[in-house]
Amino acid sequence: MKKQCKKAIVLLSGGLDSTTTLYIAKHQGYHVTALIFRYGQRHDKEVLRAQRIARSAHCDHHVVNISLPWKGSSLLDPRQAIPEHRTLKSMPSKIPSTYVPSRNMIFLSFASSFAEAIGADTIFLGANVRDYSGYPDCRPQFLKAFARAMRAGTKAGARGCAIQIKAPLIRKTKEEIIRLGYRLKVPYHLTWSCYKGQAKPCGTCDSCLLRQKGFAALKRKDPAL
Amino acid sequence: MKKQCKKAIVLLSGGLDSTTTLYIAKHQGYHVTALIFRYGQRHDKEVLRAQRIARSAHCDHHVVNISLPWKGSSLLDPRQAIPEHRTLKSMPSKIPSTYVPSRNMIFLSFASSFAEAIGADTIFLGANVRDYSGYPDCRPQFLKAFARAMRAGTKAGARGCAIQIKAPLIRKTKEEIIRLGYRLKVPYHLTWSCYKGQAKPCGTCDSCLLRQKGFAALKRKDPAL
Repeated sequence: MKKQCKKAIVLLSGGLDSTTTLYIAKHQGYHVTALIFRYGQRHDKEVLRAQRIARSAHCDHHVVNISLPWKGSSLLDPRQAIPEHRTLKSMPSKIPSTYVPSRNMIFLSFASSFAEAIGADTIFLGANVRDYSGYPDCRPQFLKAFARAMRAGTKAGARGCAIQIKAPLIRKTKEEIIRLGYRLKVPYHLTWSCYKGQAKPCGTCDSCLLRQKGFAALKRKDPAL
Repeated sequence: MKKQCKKAIVLLSGGLDSTTTLYIAKHQGYHVTALIFRYGQRHDKEVLRAQRIARSAHCDHHVVNISLPWKGSSLLDPRQAIPEHRTLKSMPSKIPSTYVPSRNMIFLSFASSFAEAIGADTIFLGANVRDYSGYPDCRPQFLKAFARAMRAGTKAGARGCAIQIKAPLIRKTKEEIIRLGYRLKVPYHLTWSCYKGQAKPCGTCDSCLLRQKGFAALKRKDPAL
């Protein structure tokens, strides 16, 4: 089968990792389309940030609106408290209440559908298991298993031309991610990480803590603050 | 970990196979919730049928509305023609234009999320590779690979208590499916199969042809006609 033009889908949340991933995909020469999800997250202001980031990177983008008739996560249910002040060491060992059931599975499924529809051969996402909250759907074993499912269940896969998943940050620390991002001129001032989605980042949720750690290690001020 | 109560999610399209599957799940003693998708399909009247079927089976149900910003299928794009008069023998060898990219992947991802949220341990779907259109996401190798991805990427899986996928019709002929369905008192008069979604079934699309084959083999009149 004729090789497709080098098109990629990037899952873009508007946070630090996915934005860096977008710039990596561009740097690798892909024609990138960003896929952004509004899924009832408390911090849906990240969607606006993601759109601004895609525009600033001169990328096409689509917003997919998902209305989940269930919750099962403090990130979807404002009556539940967002965990605060967790220690960075303890995070990976316990799946926190902010885990959204099968979120990356849903996002990757849409990306697979979109990739099939436009003939893209790669899906990028910012999953990471070094400085992370312990979500099972960020782990390499999940991404590998999902790529196999895409190979078995898509038209491209059935034709021997599977869509690949790239998670270039998977084993990097936040410090390494941000250092790489600055080399690629990632507009970190546009990114949003805080789970609470208030006017200013709370500074105490997992996402804020991980972000602080990265900038602190590099001795740089977070340009989004 | 304590065994959950026997809850199952059934992917319900309102067609013949998924409706029979719903009744099999009930017959197996599961507390069933039907998951119905409105995803821009031309024949979205199947959604109303699916809701009637769920109510008639005394099952909870949820309709998930998905707005795909892309097409890539004649089932989503009314400007494309639905293939007609294909021979039943030729169907499995060529993926037709009615294939919706990664549809079962998207549906199963939502089902996985829902199963995690309510603590269900089984997802049922009516996938079939005997009398089918040749869609890659109906094949057993896809379902097996997807179940592995669920094991690797969910909270339940990380705790060693994976959600299973059951496709009880996977290797049955349409005749066998309908015969089983009549034993289970499946209300076939409520089901809708035709891809065109007009007032009456067209009788010429893959879905109509496969359905006709089943009733003809049983020498029964289709009660939905």
